[in-house]
Amino acid sequence: MNFTILLDYIGTFAFAISGIRMAAAKKFDWFGAYVVGLVTAVGGGTIRDLLLGITPFWMQQPSYIIITGIALLVVIVFGKKLVRMNTTMFLFDAIGLGLFTVVGFEKSLDAEFPIWVSIIMGTLTGAAGGIMRDILINEVPLIFRKDIYATACILGGLIFYICMKIGISNAMCEIFGAASVIIVRIWAVRKSVSLPLMKDDSSDDEEEMKGRS
Amino acid sequence: MNFTILLDYIGTFAFAISGIRMAAAKKFDWFGAYVVGLVTAVGGGTIRDLLLGITPFWMQQPSYIIITGIALLVVIVFGKKLVRMNTTMFLFDAIGLGLFTVVGFEKSLDAEFPIWVSIIMGTLTGAAGGIMRDILINEVPLIFRKDIYATACILGGLIFYICMKIGISNAMCEIFGAASVIIVRIWAVRKSVSLPLMKDDSSDDEEEMKGRS
Amino acid sequence: MNFTILLDYIGTFAFAISGIRMAAAKKFDWFGAYVVGLVTAVGGGTIRDLLLGITPFWMQQPSYIIITGIALLVVIVFGKKLVRMNTTMFLFDAIGLGLFTVVGFEKSLDAEFPIWVSIIMGTLTGAAGGIMRDILINEVPLIFRKDIYATACILGGLIFYICMKIGISNAMCEIFGAASVIIVRIWAVRKSVSLPLMKDDSSDDEEEMKGRS
Repeated sequence: MNFTILLDYIGTFAFAISGIRMAAAKKFDWFGAYVVGLVTAVGGGTIRDLLLGITPFWMQQPSYIIITGIALLVVIVFGKKLVRMNTTMFLFDAIGLGLFTVVGFEKSLDAEFPIWVSIIMGTLTGAAGGIMRDILINEVPLIFRKDIYATACILGGLIFYICMKIGISNAMCEIFGAASVIIVRIWAVRKSVSLPLMKDDSSDDEEEMKGRS
Repeated sequence: MNFTILLDYIGTFAFAISGIRMAAAKKFDWFGAYVVGLVTAVGGGTIRDLLLGITPFWMQQPSYIIITGIALLVVIVFGKKLVRMNTTMFLFDAIGLGLFTVVGFEKSLDAEFPIWVSIIMGTLTGAAGGIMRDILINEVPLIFRKDIYATACILGGLIFYICMKIGISNAMCEIFGAASVIIVRIWAVRKSVSLPLMKDDSSDDEEEMKGRS
Repeated sequence: MNFTILLDYIGTFAFAISGIRMAAAKKFDWFGAYVVGLVTAVGGGTIRDLLLGITPFWMQQPSYIIITGIALLVVIVFGKKLVRMNTTMFLFDAIGLGLFTVVGFEKSLDAEFPIWVSIIMGTLTGAAGGIMRDILINEVPLIFRKDIYATACILGGLIFYICMKIGISNAMCEIFGAASVIIVRIWAVRKSVSLPLMKDDSSDDEEEMKGRS
């Protein structure tokens, strides 16, 4: 099993764990937790593949289904102990984010879409699973309100593109792209850097909503 | 009209009724109730077809649109009376669940996907509509927290597969597969059997969420 | 740039503004607001294209991504002032609704789907973005509870169809179809006309939900 695949599985595991633990915090049953974990792990890539018009990656071999199952067992068995491992899980999660972004970016380029679409697809691959997770547990998506998360993916895509332009080998482009996502993500959480928040100017939502319905 | 189609329509009707009644409980208007009913009835099969890369079944002939319209009229006209018919509606619903599972399972096999994908597709066909319904009415998906529901679909897929393996006629496989879903579903609700719930170990959600964002 | 494209961009802008302002009312960050704005603007057309099995329109040229970015800047910079422009924004929004409906209707006919599918696709194009916006901000979809919104799209599709049947030129069919959506929408909000609401007959939700899970 090559290194990229290993990182892909580590990222999948970390994403699944995060979904399963949030489902646990909502007292979901084992099946519900598994679904939330799976959606967190493969949801972003699935939307990407549907938009690109190709068969979702997780339907081509069962690894992702199995890894999510292992993640469920780990949460059920180790439960509390995991809380003490938050830093490790966060690092795994950041690694997954970086790798998913690069995978999504390249998959979109291979499908012959322009750079700007590829950057969006890389970001979707990394960030959409977490949004779907939050919709399933009926919370406002976390990444819309705190930290630098999807923006790190956008940056990663840009770095990858620049590396391509200046003619660096593909392997190096992947490493620089993924690394930039991981570093920015870790830096943002360490320094708790966030994007500016919108100001609520609609003192009169009523009107505003009537406008749009 | 053959028997399978009849059961398919009965299931569609029952799923639509359940969606429309939940929308009614939320004071939706007629259009909103119709949409929720339609999504409950065809949502699972639609996701399955998108994942399989084929045109959604309900776009090929208008029956499902019409049946949902009839369901809306029934709820508007009979309203209260339906409450007394909950057992009947539950049975229709269980029949629909069993049939939808088998249909989804076979459709996926026909598209030449492996068994494990087919089992997932059967489960999606039966259970995803209810999840989408709950997202539309802004509730935490019910099947993630109570009863045996999607797990009955997984079992039904397995039974279908075993029947195939031991070389039973396809018709019999369908009957055994669907029946097992229906029986398990009825048994679970009668005995109010549920899957074990996850324990909330994240005494400190803050940390946990920071980990994932 | 021809007139239809201009109207399409005006509608996109208005839809994006509405999403961004609702995200602002929820204190989303800039990225979250951008995503909600984009989903509001292109979400309906994206679902339509996925159902029709074609590449989502916004992936074929970057205008929609850019227009949403401009909408974000406008909300950030002008904020409060926009509240005073609600009527203008509402008109833009109604224009967008009418145009999106016609575009979706024709795109579906071009893909050789029957009229009833085309009417549904036109309605999805106009109304699904707002539903997705409300799911992202974790609210019950507004159009399920107030005003005439999606029903105006259905009517617009029917008018378009009738115009085709009586052999009016395509350009005129488009104008009549879009105009009917816009007029009905404006009329409904002016007179605050709504569809009848469902009555909540399930005095016993428990039972009811048990029925469906």
